[in-house]
Amino acid sequence: VSKALIPVVLSGGSGTRLWPLSRADRPKQFLNFGGGETLIEATLRRCSGQGFDPRPIIVAAESHRFMVRETVNALGLEADILLEPMRRDSCAAIVAGALQALQRDKDALILVVAADHHILDAEAFAVAALSARDAAEAGWLVTFGIKPTAPATGYGYILPGQDAAGSTTKRIARFVEKPDRATAEAYLTQGFVWNSGNFLFKAAAFLEQAQLLVPDIVRAMTAALAKASHDMGFLRLDAQAFAASPQISVDFAIMEKTGRAAVKVVDYLWSDIGSWDAVAGALPADASDNSVVGTGFIADSRNVSIHSIDRLTTVLGCDGLVVVTTRDAVMVCRKGQTEAVKQLVETLKAAGHREAEGSLRHYRPWGNHEVIDQGPDYEVRRIVIAREGAISLQSHGSRSEHWILVQGSALATVGDHKQALTANGSLTIPAGKTHSIRNTGDGDLILIEVHTGVPRGEADTTRYS
Amino acid sequence: VSKALIPVVLSGGSGTRLWPLSRADRPKQFLNFGGGETLIEATLRRCSGQGFDPRPIIVAAESHRFMVRETVNALGLEADILLEPMRRDSCAAIVAGALQALQRDKDALILVVAADHHILDAEAFAVAALSARDAAEAGWLVTFGIKPTAPATGYGYILPGQDAAGSTTKRIARFVEKPDRATAEAYLTQGFVWNSGNFLFKAAAFLEQAQLLVPDIVRAMTAALAKASHDMGFLRLDAQAFAASPQISVDFAIMEKTGRAAVKVVDYLWSDIGSWDAVAGALPADASDNSVVGTGFIADSRNVSIHSIDRLTTVLGCDGLVVVTTRDAVMVCRKGQTEAVKQLVETLKAAGHREAEGSLRHYRPWGNHEVIDQGPDYEVRRIVIAREGAISLQSHGSRSEHWILVQGSALATVGDHKQALTANGSLTIPAGKTHSIRNTGDGDLILIEVHTGVPRGEADTTRYS
Repeated sequence: VSKALIPVVLSGGSGTRLWPLSRADRPKQFLNFGGGETLIEATLRRCSGQGFDPRPIIVAAESHRFMVRETVNALGLEADILLEPMRRDSCAAIVAGALQALQRDKDALILVVAADHHILDAEAFAVAALSARDAAEAGWLVTFGIKPTAPATGYGYILPGQDAAGSTTKRIARFVEKPDRATAEAYLTQGFVWNSGNFLFKAAAFLEQAQLLVPDIVRAMTAALAKASHDMGFLRLDAQAFAASPQISVDFAIMEKTGRAAVKVVDYLWSDIGSWDAVAGALPADASDNSVVGTGFIADSRNVSIHSIDRLTTVLGCDGLVVVTTRDAVMVCRKGQTEAVKQLVETLKAAGHREAEGSLRHYRPWGNHEVIDQGPDYEVRRIVIAREGAISLQSHGSRSEHWILVQGSALATVGDHKQALTANGSLTIPAGKTHSIRNTGDGDLILIEVHTGVPRGEADTTRYS
Repeated sequence: VSKALIPVVLSGGSGTRLWPLSRADRPKQFLNFGGGETLIEATLRRCSGQGFDPRPIIVAAESHRFMVRETVNALGLEADILLEPMRRDSCAAIVAGALQALQRDKDALILVVAADHHILDAEAFAVAALSARDAAEAGWLVTFGIKPTAPATGYGYILPGQDAAGSTTKRIARFVEKPDRATAEAYLTQGFVWNSGNFLFKAAAFLEQAQLLVPDIVRAMTAALAKASHDMGFLRLDAQAFAASPQISVDFAIMEKTGRAAVKVVDYLWSDIGSWDAVAGALPADASDNSVVGTGFIADSRNVSIHSIDRLTTVLGCDGLVVVTTRDAVMVCRKGQTEAVKQLVETLKAAGHREAEGSLRHYRPWGNHEVIDQGPDYEVRRIVIAREGAISLQSHGSRSEHWILVQGSALATVGDHKQALTANGSLTIPAGKTHSIRNTGDGDLILIEVHTGVPRGEADTTRYS
């Protein structure tokens, strides 16, 4: 029996390129683009089943840990979730993942995949990954090269060379950075493939090259893992050790330098969904090249893509637009210029627009909360507490709260008093009183919380655990 | 002393042309376009002061009565508010207004103005209106003709002829319907003026012509007023009598047929704000022809107008767009095609989109309410009760309600129990219990109401008054 591949899922991403749908607090791997599942869910699903180790390793930003946990739970998986205290680019993340895999098995084969890529044909992906196993076993660092379907200028390219191991995996003759349009068109006929940033290799073989080429990263990650703390099922990499790592991509650090780089050419449809143009390109469109995700209506227009969350978005008489509607921000962008969204977000951030980074919904270990209304002296929130979740004991100095349970059942504690609540039950929590609540039902618990009295927010909260 | 002009304000309008900001339940006279006051507020303010009767007559749709009342109250005015039970176009409305004015004074002079036009220079407007008084006293039906500033194709035109009364008011040589572009350009040099649809005349002189030309309308309106009911300070025109009126505009019915038509040429800036293009044209723009009302950000674009309510709207890399964002609908339209919005709304209506007609906020005699969140089995509303307002006694068959007062003070009655509430007070109203609440403070009262239990809405409500 061949060795199962351990998925190492890289959940990085700063959430600016698909703004306003993606935000710093919810980058694109946690979004769904009309398929019903988020990109990270689809990624984890693709890396499961026959030939894959059932316990993936996920390397994620500390601030996204609850969304990762929610995803893993929803899929019924067990996973090693490594939390990065800060951004150090892909090389450090893969080194950490490889070291973790090595602890399970010194001969571990790891399949390194981005959490936020779009691959429709999961079976073709699995077949391709498993067929590169021999080359990886032989010590090649195999990257997956995608047969281009268009002269894309947003991707790096790879030129395959001589056979590496068998005839389906080739040595890499050349890496090239994102080309201009004319160069990209020439590449289409010259055998170049897109560099997908997904890899298969023996953890030990990769670390051997890393040790040669970027020993500082191996040293930093080894220490970060050795001093990692286990917290609520997460493995928190040690911040001080982690911070010592250079910040560099795996391509620059290793793949472009090592003599062991190989490429497996594949021809499934793949996109890194790196811009709204890319999203639009990955969606089915009608005869006028229009597409709608969510609730939209397009009249007398062509080449328009609407992505509309929670309200009706209409476009009339337009050509070549992307329109994205979210609960707190709307963006209209000419197609072909969506690469500039990243810059727009920086500008909005500099101008102090909260929407540039944060969303209205906040994820917590126990679920999420979202402001649904506010006035000068009050705030109304919808609080969703997941099954088995609880909000731990706390009190507020100067604000009082009202809770109305509208779905599920709970046990609440206010001061010394315990009270069971079911749908339609309510509680008033005076300022200064300690309180906590636990979901005692089988599904989500939904509370409407009304605050009155300033100040709002965390400054007024004392936590007891 | 000259006779004061009685303003007759026509508050018609179906609310489709400026969708999604305007809706059937909130047409454009009740909107503000960045000036801080709504068009009807500005209109009433323009028709006040020296030379104007302090008690205007407002002819409005029955369904808009609370918004009219709110406006009148906010301005501290007394007004005769005539409610039309259905639409019968401008001739019927003006006849009703003229008959009402005649009851005050058989020699009444009425200044008939649309509630939803935009005139920035209130003083120029007042001077022009008052200077046409002599012609009106002499029995001329004076229409105000605006000196065109552009070859507009959205307006009707008037060609002034010989002097009517003095040299500033002319007989009307010709009325012409909306012209094509080339014709409109020719008109610019030929002395044509825009037909503003605003008038000054003696009520008796107008009614004399109406009696000659459209006696059915005069008969219907006379009966509708005679049988009108007085209700909460409104004068509800009798529906059966009103329904008997022909539906025709005052231009077609009277102005284009009578020998008494005259035009006073004026040159203040005027717009009927009949499309989003017109709105954009009336707003100050920056050097790139961009304009923003509300919260918007425009980058690398020209000739873009954003009108954004309650969230951030951004436009990137576009040319010639109108973008309108509201709490429940977004519209993006190419400039120059905004006349088609009316048709878009019809299409949306036919497709069953609630947003085509209704808004989230509902006006009531006591204030307004708005859904701020909902789930399969619950609904959360913000209820604003105006000063001196009250929600009268009612009960709900199968739903119970929670009220949390977040601003102001109130007296609530649940069953036999009376309870004073101040900010932060709360009440639970079990299903079946009668309840009412009255604002006892000096300003708006704000309640958050949480319903649980189906069904929602009116079907479940019993009213006791």
